[in-house]
Amino acid sequence: MKKNHHQFGVSIQDNGSLKFKVWAPNVQQVELNISSPYHLRKPMIPEQNGVFTTYVDILSFPVEYTYILDGYTERADPASTWQPMGVNGPSKVCDHTSFKWNDEDWTGLDLKEMIIYELHVGTYTAQGTFKSVIDKIPHLKQLGINTIELMPIATFAGERNWGYDGVLLYAPQESYGGPIGLKQLVNACHQNGIAVILDVVYNHFGPEGNHLEDFGPYFTSKYTTPWGKAINYDGEYSTFVRDFIIENAIHWLKYFHIDGLRLDAIHGIFDQSAYHILEELRDRFAKAAEEEGRQACLIAESDLNDPKYVSPQTNGGCGLDAQWNDDFHHSVHSFVTGSRVGYFEDYGSVEYISKALTDGFVYDGIWSNFRKRYHGKSSAEIPGFKMVNFIQNHDQIANASHGLRLASLVDKKKYLLASTLLLLSPSTPLLFMGQEWATKTPFYFFTDFEDTELQEAVRKGRLKEYSLNGISEGFRDPGDIETFRECLLDWNWNKDEECMEVFRHYQKLIALRKDHPALNRSADSQTNVNYSEEGEWITIEKSTNKGDSCIVVINFSESPKTIHVDNHVYQSKALYSTENIHQFNDSITLEPLSFAVYDSTHICV
Amino acid sequence: MKKNHHQFGVSIQDNGSLKFKVWAPNVQQVELNISSPYHLRKPMIPEQNGVFTTYVDILSFPVEYTYILDGYTERADPASTWQPMGVNGPSKVCDHTSFKWNDEDWTGLDLKEMIIYELHVGTYTAQGTFKSVIDKIPHLKQLGINTIELMPIATFAGERNWGYDGVLLYAPQESYGGPIGLKQLVNACHQNGIAVILDVVYNHFGPEGNHLEDFGPYFTSKYTTPWGKAINYDGEYSTFVRDFIIENAIHWLKYFHIDGLRLDAIHGIFDQSAYHILEELRDRFAKAAEEEGRQACLIAESDLNDPKYVSPQTNGGCGLDAQWNDDFHHSVHSFVTGSRVGYFEDYGSVEYISKALTDGFVYDGIWSNFRKRYHGKSSAEIPGFKMVNFIQNHDQIANASHGLRLASLVDKKKYLLASTLLLLSPSTPLLFMGQEWATKTPFYFFTDFEDTELQEAVRKGRLKEYSLNGISEGFRDPGDIETFRECLLDWNWNKDEECMEVFRHYQKLIALRKDHPALNRSADSQTNVNYSEEGEWITIEKSTNKGDSCIVVINFSESPKTIHVDNHVYQSKALYSTENIHQFNDSITLEPLSFAVYDSTHICV
Repeated sequence: MKKNHHQFGVSIQDNGSLKFKVWAPNVQQVELNISSPYHLRKPMIPEQNGVFTTYVDILSFPVEYTYILDGYTERADPASTWQPMGVNGPSKVCDHTSFKWNDEDWTGLDLKEMIIYELHVGTYTAQGTFKSVIDKIPHLKQLGINTIELMPIATFAGERNWGYDGVLLYAPQESYGGPIGLKQLVNACHQNGIAVILDVVYNHFGPEGNHLEDFGPYFTSKYTTPWGKAINYDGEYSTFVRDFIIENAIHWLKYFHIDGLRLDAIHGIFDQSAYHILEELRDRFAKAAEEEGRQACLIAESDLNDPKYVSPQTNGGCGLDAQWNDDFHHSVHSFVTGSRVGYFEDYGSVEYISKALTDGFVYDGIWSNFRKRYHGKSSAEIPGFKMVNFIQNHDQIANASHGLRLASLVDKKKYLLASTLLLLSPSTPLLFMGQEWATKTPFYFFTDFEDTELQEAVRKGRLKEYSLNGISEGFRDPGDIETFRECLLDWNWNKDEECMEVFRHYQKLIALRKDHPALNRSADSQTNVNYSEEGEWITIEKSTNKGDSCIVVINFSESPKTIHVDNHVYQSKALYSTENIHQFNDSITLEPLSFAVYDSTHICV
Repeated sequence: MKKNHHQFGVSIQDNGSLKFKVWAPNVQQVELNISSPYHLRKPMIPEQNGVFTTYVDILSFPVEYTYILDGYTERADPASTWQPMGVNGPSKVCDHTSFKWNDEDWTGLDLKEMIIYELHVGTYTAQGTFKSVIDKIPHLKQLGINTIELMPIATFAGERNWGYDGVLLYAPQESYGGPIGLKQLVNACHQNGIAVILDVVYNHFGPEGNHLEDFGPYFTSKYTTPWGKAINYDGEYSTFVRDFIIENAIHWLKYFHIDGLRLDAIHGIFDQSAYHILEELRDRFAKAAEEEGRQACLIAESDLNDPKYVSPQTNGGCGLDAQWNDDFHHSVHSFVTGSRVGYFEDYGSVEYISKALTDGFVYDGIWSNFRKRYHGKSSAEIPGFKMVNFIQNHDQIANASHGLRLASLVDKKKYLLASTLLLLSPSTPLLFMGQEWATKTPFYFFTDFEDTELQEAVRKGRLKEYSLNGISEGFRDPGDIETFRECLLDWNWNKDEECMEVFRHYQKLIALRKDHPALNRSADSQTNVNYSEEGEWITIEKSTNKGDSCIVVINFSESPKTIHVDNHVYQSKALYSTENIHQFNDSITLEPLSFAVYDSTHICV
C-alpha cells in the first residue's frame, strides 16, 4: 500500500489557480480568508482525516490570506512561506516560479569536502539581513570556507531571536529579508561556490505565536522536552505531523536550493515508530535531492552519542549523513581553558582529544560523572567526515561559556593550537562566525517576545541556569535589546594586527586542508594519534592508502619540547609552522605553545 | 573502562556472613533492621552514588529484616527475594544454597521447539499455588506442550492479582508459595521435560506497595506510560536502575532455573541510550545463561511492530529471541468471530491471516484506521519461530473480549479451525490455560488492593474502557473477590465429551507439530500460503530444504468446498482430519468448516 504524502500550504496549479491545503482535524470547518488583492471568504472542503482544501482562480500577486477556524479563530497558515507582518499577521503566497535562479551549474557539495561556517543572520552584520550576508561573501571566499550554515531563520515572535523559537517553519523571517532575501543569499553563495546549510528545529516550537494546536494534534504528552511540548511523531494522526515536517525539509531543498539541513537537538525528537521519523526524513529528503539533481546532506545535532543515527540503514541505522560531535569540542575546550564547570568536568585530558580525533565519540559507553550514568556507544566504525567538529558554536558560547568566546578565555597561542586541531582534524570542521579572527564579541542568548510574562519567565530561567553553574556575574537579560546589540560582530577587526594574524592562520590551515591529499579527503585516510600522558604534546598523522601522508605536531606546554615522531620527520617538508622548528633524526623540537605540519608522503610510499 | 555491575539484596559470603546491599541515593543514611533470629539495628556504610552495604556474621535462618531510611521510614528491601507478609512486611533472606535441585540433566529447551502454555498460578487451580500447578504436570504432558509460561509472580499488594501490579520484583508472591514453591515447580517441570518461562514487568510498577522512590530515582517524568510512571532507564543514576532490572532477570535464571522471560509491554520501556536497556539485558542475560550452561530465551511483548527488537545486534537490532505477534491473533480472532470492535476494525480478511503466517507482521508500514497512522515495518526477514502466535492470551481475553473466551464467541468447528491455524503455523505457538479443552471459564482483570480509593479508581477506569468499546453489560468489578472466583478453571472438564473432543484435537495437532519434519523445526522450513479472496479457504504448505513437506487445507465456509492444491494431494497421505475428505487429481473437497493435513513429502523430493 503506497503512502500518500501530504504537502500543505499553497501551490500554484498548472492552470494558474491556487490550491490551498491545510490540516485541521481539531476543528469542524475552515474558511479561507483572502485580504489581498481583494476580499474573499470561502469555506474549504473537508477531506479525510481533517484535511481541508480549496481552489481559487485568477488572482494577481501579492495574495494575502488567513484561515478562519470554526468561524471564529483567525490564524496564519501553519505552512505559510511568507509572514511579512510576523507570526500573528496574515500569510502571503510566495510565487516560487518568479524567482530567477542563476545557479544552474551548481549541483551541491560533497560533505567530505565541506568546511562549514555557522552564522546568525541577525548578528552577523549591523543590518542583520540575508542581503548583508551576501556582502560578506568576498570575506568568506578569502577565508576559504566553502559552506555556510545559517542558524534557524523560520519565522519567530519579535524582531530578533537566537532562532530556536521559530513557530512558522516554512517562512523565512521577514526581518532577515523573507523568502526572497533567502533565495538571493543562496543564489549568490552558489555562484561563488559556497554551499548553504540551514539549521532546522524539528524537536519543539517556540513559545509565542505557536497556534498549531488550534489546528491539530501536533504535540504529544507522551514525552517531554526541556524546550516545550514534544512533537507528535508516533501518536494518532502523527502521519500528518511527519508529512508537515518532512515536506518542510523538502521545501527548503526544492524552492530555496538549500544544500543541507542541520537538525537541531534530535535527542528532543521522540519516536517509537518502527520507521523512525529521521529515517523517513532521510529517505524522502534523499529522494527529493535526487529528483532535483543535487547533492544534499542531513546533519544531526545529538546529545546521545549513538552511532545509529549516522549508520547506514542496512545496519539498522537512520542513514543521516553526519552529526555534531560535542565530545571533540568539550575535550579541546576543557583542555585549553582548564574549565571543569558543568559538563566540562567529564573532560580535560589530552587522551580524550586523541580519542575524539580517532574514534569520534569519547563517551562510548564509559561512565560520565556529569550525567551520573554510563553514556554512549562506540563510533569508531563511523568514518571521520560523518562527525562535525568545532571548538566554538552558538550553543557552546552562549550556554556553556555564558556568551564568552574562546578568544576571551585563552591566549592567542592556545587559540591557534585549538584552531589547528580543528582544521586539521579528520572530521568535518565547523567554525562559528568571527572565530576566524578570534573575535571577542560575545554571543548571548536573546529573544524579543511581546508577552512580557513570557519574557520575564525566560529571563528567570536563564538566570537560574547561570546560578547553577556557579556563575553570577556577566548575566545578560535575553529580552534587553542591548544584549542583542552586544552580539553584533565588529567588522573593523581587520584593523587589528592580532586579528589579522589569526585570520591568516585560518586561511593557511584551510588552504592546507583543501590542498593536501591526506587532509582534503578525510574519508579515505587513516589517522594515528600519539600524545604524552601529561598532555604536553600530541602528534596526529594522516595517511591515505595511496601513500600520501602528513603529520601535525603540537606542543601544548609552556616550555620547548622535543617530540619523537619516528624517523619520518628529518627528511620531511615542513608545510606550516608559526614558530621556529628544530628537526632531528627521529624527533623535532617545538617552541612553547607551537605546532608544525609536515608532509611525510615520500617516507611512507 | 569495564562497567561495574551491581547486584542488590542479600548474598551469603564464603565465610557464611551475610552481605546486605541497597541503593538509596535519595536518603542520607540507611540502617539494617533485623527482627529475626534476634534484634539488631545497624547503620549501613555509604559507598559511591548512594550504594549502602553492611555485613552481618553468624546468623541462623530464618533471617528477617527491613531497611530504615534516614532514621524514620521502614521499608522492605527493594531486592527482597521473600516477602512472607506481603508488600509492606519485612523481607526474609532466601538461602538459595539450601534448595535441592534435581534438574542436573536439564539444559533448557530450544525456542524453535517450544509449544508454550501460558497460565496464571492463582486461577489455574482452586488452590492457586505453585504446588497445585505441579499436580497438573501429568495433564500438561498428556496434552503434549513442553513449555509453561507463568504470568507475573512478583510480589503484589493483596492476595490475588492479575500479576501486572508487582512491586517487589525479586520476590515470588507468598500466596502462590513464595520462592521455595516456585523452585519446586520449576524443578518438577524440568524433571518432566517442561521448560518454564516467566512473565516479567519491566515497564512499570504496581500502584500499591511501591516505595522505590523512597530509595532512589527509579522513575522518570521524561516519558509517560498508561500504567504508571515510566522507569528511569536513561536519566541520572539510570545505571543503577538498569542493574536492578537486569540482575532481576539473571536472578530468575540463576536461582530459580527459569528457562526464559516474557518481557511485558516493551513499548512501555523508554530508553534513548545508545546502548538500549533491552540490548544490555539481552547481552548480560545471554552471558549468564552461558555461564550456567543452559539455554534461556527472552521473548518480548511489543505493540510496535518493529522487527529491530528481534533482529540481530549486528544488524542494529536488540537481539531478543522472539516477540509476541498480536497481528496473528487479531487476524484470526476478527476473521472467526466477525468482531470489528476496537483494534479489530483493522483486521478481518483472510489475506491478513496469510500475511501473518508468511511475514509475521501484518501492519508493516500500512495505514491503520484504528491507530490513525501508518504502523510498523516488515518482519518478512525475521524467521517464523521468532514470532510467538496465539489465538487467546490473558490480555486478549480479559481486555479485548471483556473476559470471554474464544470458545464462548465461536462454535466448536470454528474453534477447531482457529486452533489448527495456531498449532500448525510456522511460528511458535502459545496456548492460554484451558484453551486445550475450549473452556468457557472467563478470565477477567482482578486486583485486591487495600487502598479502597485506589480500588475504586481502578474499577472506574475499567468501566470507562468498557464503555469506550460500546459494551456495557458483563462488566465485573476487579476488586470483587467473585470476579476472581469466576476465573478459576473448572477441572471437571474431562467429564464433558465436547471438551474431550477438543482436547484430543489439541493432542493430535501438537503431536503432528512435534513429529512431522516440516512442522517441528519451523526455523528450517518454507511456508507458502494460498487462499480465496472471499475468505472461504486457505492452504498452508510447509516444506524443508530436505524435501519434507506437508500441507494444511482449511475450509472456513459453511458449505463443502473443492480446493485446488496443485497435483500434490491425490497421492498424498492424509495425516489428520476431523471430517470426510474427497481427494481428486489436483484438489480436495472438504466438508463445511473442516480441515485436512496431508504429508506431501514424497511429491516434493
